[in-house]
Amino acid sequence: MKPLPVDASRLQQQIDALAAISEAPAPVVTRVLFSEADLKARAFIKQLCQQAGLSLREDAVGNLFARWSGKDSKLTPVATGSHIDAIPNAGRYDGVVGVLGALEAIRALKQSGFEPNRSIELIIFTAEEPTRFGLGCLGSRLMSGALSLEKAAALRDPDGQTLDYWRGKARFNTQELKSVQLLKDCYSAFIELHIEQGPLLENEKIPIGVVEKIAAPSTLRVQLIGVGGHAGAVLMPDRHDALLAGAEIALAVEQAALTTGSPDTVGTTGVFRIEPGAVNSVPCRAWLEIDLRDTQLPTRAAALKRIEAAIPVVCKRRGIDFQIERLNVDAPATCDPRLVNTVADVCRELGLPVKKMISRAYHDSLFMAQICPTMMIFIPCRGGVSHRPDEYSSPQQIRDGVTVLAHTLAKLAA
Amino acid sequence: MKPLPVDASRLQQQIDALAAISEAPAPVVTRVLFSEADLKARAFIKQLCQQAGLSLREDAVGNLFARWSGKDSKLTPVATGSHIDAIPNAGRYDGVVGVLGALEAIRALKQSGFEPNRSIELIIFTAEEPTRFGLGCLGSRLMSGALSLEKAAALRDPDGQTLDYWRGKARFNTQELKSVQLLKDCYSAFIELHIEQGPLLENEKIPIGVVEKIAAPSTLRVQLIGVGGHAGAVLMPDRHDALLAGAEIALAVEQAALTTGSPDTVGTTGVFRIEPGAVNSVPCRAWLEIDLRDTQLPTRAAALKRIEAAIPVVCKRRGIDFQIERLNVDAPATCDPRLVNTVADVCRELGLPVKKMISRAYHDSLFMAQICPTMMIFIPCRGGVSHRPDEYSSPQQIRDGVTVLAHTLAKLAA
Repeated sequence: MKPLPVDASRLQQQIDALAAISEAPAPVVTRVLFSEADLKARAFIKQLCQQAGLSLREDAVGNLFARWSGKDSKLTPVATGSHIDAIPNAGRYDGVVGVLGALEAIRALKQSGFEPNRSIELIIFTAEEPTRFGLGCLGSRLMSGALSLEKAAALRDPDGQTLDYWRGKARFNTQELKSVQLLKDCYSAFIELHIEQGPLLENEKIPIGVVEKIAAPSTLRVQLIGVGGHAGAVLMPDRHDALLAGAEIALAVEQAALTTGSPDTVGTTGVFRIEPGAVNSVPCRAWLEIDLRDTQLPTRAAALKRIEAAIPVVCKRRGIDFQIERLNVDAPATCDPRLVNTVADVCRELGLPVKKMISRAYHDSLFMAQICPTMMIFIPCRGGVSHRPDEYSSPQQIRDGVTVLAHTLAKLAA
Repeated sequence: MKPLPVDASRLQQQIDALAAISEAPAPVVTRVLFSEADLKARAFIKQLCQQAGLSLREDAVGNLFARWSGKDSKLTPVATGSHIDAIPNAGRYDGVVGVLGALEAIRALKQSGFEPNRSIELIIFTAEEPTRFGLGCLGSRLMSGALSLEKAAALRDPDGQTLDYWRGKARFNTQELKSVQLLKDCYSAFIELHIEQGPLLENEKIPIGVVEKIAAPSTLRVQLIGVGGHAGAVLMPDRHDALLAGAEIALAVEQAALTTGSPDTVGTTGVFRIEPGAVNSVPCRAWLEIDLRDTQLPTRAAALKRIEAAIPVVCKRRGIDFQIERLNVDAPATCDPRLVNTVADVCRELGLPVKKMISRAYHDSLFMAQICPTMMIFIPCRGGVSHRPDEYSSPQQIRDGVTVLAHTLAKLAA
């Protein structure tokens, strides 16, 4: 099979240009949901989609749909895509490869003279990263109905602002939020291209990973309310220090993840903020956000239970009030076996070795899998590093992934 | 003795007006060094000083000197004063009572027809609170020479900005920083009026505390450098989580303070920040600021040693790089016995009960004691609460303190 004319150098230029749109100076990429950098990055993508001749639609939470209309408008479209938001201090490839790479796949298909029967739709999801509201995959959760409108209305950012406030600020509020939800099977397939965010493909020198399962995440938000006071004047036995309770809880999260018996259980306290945060003041409040994942539900549930049991014990001993909120407790996703085989066939035809694997990170695919047949294509990234400025996949590695995606889209949309 | 005509209601109005100048809405008072609120508060104080007929001088770090000139310009002046900066989420009395109260004392003396032989100088110190640079008493440290110009030049705020940057921004850089240091014995006395920030006076229903010693503070800044990564993809045994090392260190600080054998040892991790601070990202960096105090040097030194020994052990086990910086290791101060007796005499003449006590919090007096005879007057505050929005002393309690200060200034400046 002759590979489609994917232009790795044009694609790399666009990846680099997008990386420069950041809240922090290079090499750091930071694009928090609805920040100025996020809005500029969206404008950049829209312009590229228009240049590629795609028609655009934005929904009420800012999910962007860029469509290449197929010859038969009665057929359900094939979808691909990922996200362009980035956690603070991130790199340039997470999500972006699945957006700009898919756009390059579409351009390569167009250039080759391919004319799809089914429409091909590129989706740029809103807030795959949990930066503003502590909840990942905001866009795809709403699309799939996994996030109720009630829970969406209750979301608050660190400043206490609502999703509605931010939708309004970014001017996505011309329609009601409920219009975001899509009908089941509105797409015939969804394929997401992504960097692995782990070291396996690199270690085994395999260019393409075919994802069969996506690990199940759950997230807790813990608020601790102690008693502040002057660090010189409040003697040790009289203290109710929220930071120290938080420190014990963070260590308990680590212990819970280490002791499930499964090497796949991972537990992280990724957010840890205290108030007032002055050196001469006893911390009166702490906010923790805890991420717990596993490829198997039972071990994850055991760790979750252990953490939720440890918090009241620590807080009672220290005289601290607490609130625990389960932000999400999601089921793992299984990728569509037919799509997995299609991609594996494409790779064999292109002569590219393939590894079948599990995604430990979660993605919008986790929620797209609830409404249509879904699968993910992974490419290697250096050292398995992600969510850091030194995240890296080579132009060659990206080209291989984009080529596989382009041929897969061609098969699915033919 | 007839009390001087201290106007408690005018003073309260001015305390309330100053509290409204804050970075955060009422009842919270936040005035970080050289923030807009700090600069506005300075302007407010300057206006009041001018209305009281005082002549103003500002030095190269923003310390403000408001002078009531005495009849004999050859005599060294008597000084009084405190600070108006406030940590995040603070109240309205800490520092402010010693500034606006002293101003009210001066107004009362003027109104009574008193004419000082010695000049009386009100000092409003820059950055008693360690908000911006993690170092308290910036103004009085520089005045006394306790902070070298070299160390001052090395100070950095959380954004990496220098003191010189901020001096320039606030336009205090017309003179060199070295001009801030004062000559030894340039004042005949320094008296600071302050809320107790502890519960003893309230519990014993005593209106005036006469401070004989000020507890010795020391401050550590700890930087922890781990390895970040995706919270889903990096398995537990491969982690070098900076937050977890920080959590263990904060708990070690508590243990070190609890086990010196002295009930007066207090240890606090008041600053605890992590990077990147995203729920799905392993924390790669942490910054801690640790405050350790005691009324006795040997027990504090033992706790400090224990903490500094614990940090490398934790970091080695977790594979974390670290830096420890001693921001300050200050000696305790002894108040001038002659001034202590003068204040005690004034209280007896006014019929006000007195308690001789230790200051567990430290103050600009700690450094003024290095250049001139110094003492502090305490008044009760509700529940011993300070550094919180519900910090409170009644107008009556404040009036008593201001009356004692006014009569003391009259004796010292006569």
